[in-house]
Amino acid sequence: MAPKYKLTYFEGRGLAEPIRYILCYGGVQFEDNRIQQADWPKIKPSTPFGKLPMLEEDGKVYDQSSAICRYLARTFNLVGSNEQEALRIDAVVDTITDLRLEMYKYAFEEAEAVKAKNKEDLEKEKLPFYLSKLDDMVKENGGYFVGGKLSWADLLFAGFHDFFSFMWDKKSLTENYPHLKALLQKVNNLPQISAWIKKRPVSEW
Amino acid sequence: MAPKYKLTYFEGRGLAEPIRYILCYGGVQFEDNRIQQADWPKIKPSTPFGKLPMLEEDGKVYDQSSAICRYLARTFNLVGSNEQEALRIDAVVDTITDLRLEMYKYAFEEAEAVKAKNKEDLEKEKLPFYLSKLDDMVKENGGYFVGGKLSWADLLFAGFHDFFSFMWDKKSLTENYPHLKALLQKVNNLPQISAWIKKRPVSEW
Repeated sequence: MAPKYKLTYFEGRGLAEPIRYILCYGGVQFEDNRIQQADWPKIKPSTPFGKLPMLEEDGKVYDQSSAICRYLARTFNLVGSNEQEALRIDAVVDTITDLRLEMYKYAFEEAEAVKAKNKEDLEKEKLPFYLSKLDDMVKENGGYFVGGKLSWADLLFAGFHDFFSFMWDKKSLTENYPHLKALLQKVNNLPQISAWIKKRPVSEW
Repeated sequence: MAPKYKLTYFEGRGLAEPIRYILCYGGVQFEDNRIQQADWPKIKPSTPFGKLPMLEEDGKVYDQSSAICRYLARTFNLVGSNEQEALRIDAVVDTITDLRLEMYKYAFEEAEAVKAKNKEDLEKEKLPFYLSKLDDMVKENGGYFVGGKLSWADLLFAGFHDFFSFMWDKKSLTENYPHLKALLQKVNNLPQISAWIKKRPVSEW
């Protein structure tokens, strides 16, 4: 029997959307459990380390979004053709995480002076550095991050794009990076993903 | 022929030590290339994303410490007995990364007031929260993080311990957590690891 999946997260795309993309890519039915912020204190103690998203598979609870993505990706043959490709995919994912954490320093910083400094740092250094290198990777690998074919790194990148854009004052991050832009479109045009985009709940982030 | 490994990092344990632990556990010879801070600007452009550690395997370059650890761990059967265990191991590793990033907010913060606040937050909330949950995991899983046997999460935890302790004003993190303390000793007493600890270069962190 196919496993039963329940994905719990807040009412947004955020850290859950790459997981949703991979589940949809795999054609898997899942319960998309979106909790209200007001219910979070009640639910928090039931999570492994006080964080979301969390995935239940046949009632067993798993946390950590990248780890969950990788686990599902192995089921759907999205981890490359050999161990070296699996490593390159893992490394891209961790690099995208590094960029995400750099963006948090701007988007969620409360001290105005620090926020302004971090914005400048992001705009002039971090974003061009990461995005140009990621763009080059896609250029050199036949339109995907690794090995000339779709992997979970591509799905994660596309699944994260709206959240990253939300953090960057709703500007697109791929505008000046043609290979990243083409990759984003290619992933979002996959039949399973475009069907998901049409049916998913509307949310700000 | 066995692959040729060269691991490049700074003159410390830091993010490289878990990789060194796993290589030593696997009985693999590797070039332990420690660079001087003064040479870093020269070397930085040759790294995939401007960061260390980086591992060369037969001349091919890989970055991202957790990804490198996982890749080596697969070779040495340190990734659990099934995909669910591999996921739980990945999740523990990412949780230890979360804790590491919380510690950076104290150890590497320059603004005195922020540093003091982050220290208090670490001491009263973050450290007890993470460490007591990790301690419980080891208690409930037969003396290891996952599945009652050694995995790369255990080697990573032990390999990181000195660096974490350095960041915490040289205090041990396992003192009040008997299961974590026993796990640390168990890993450091493995013949390959204890031989490495005896022969590795002395460094402050």
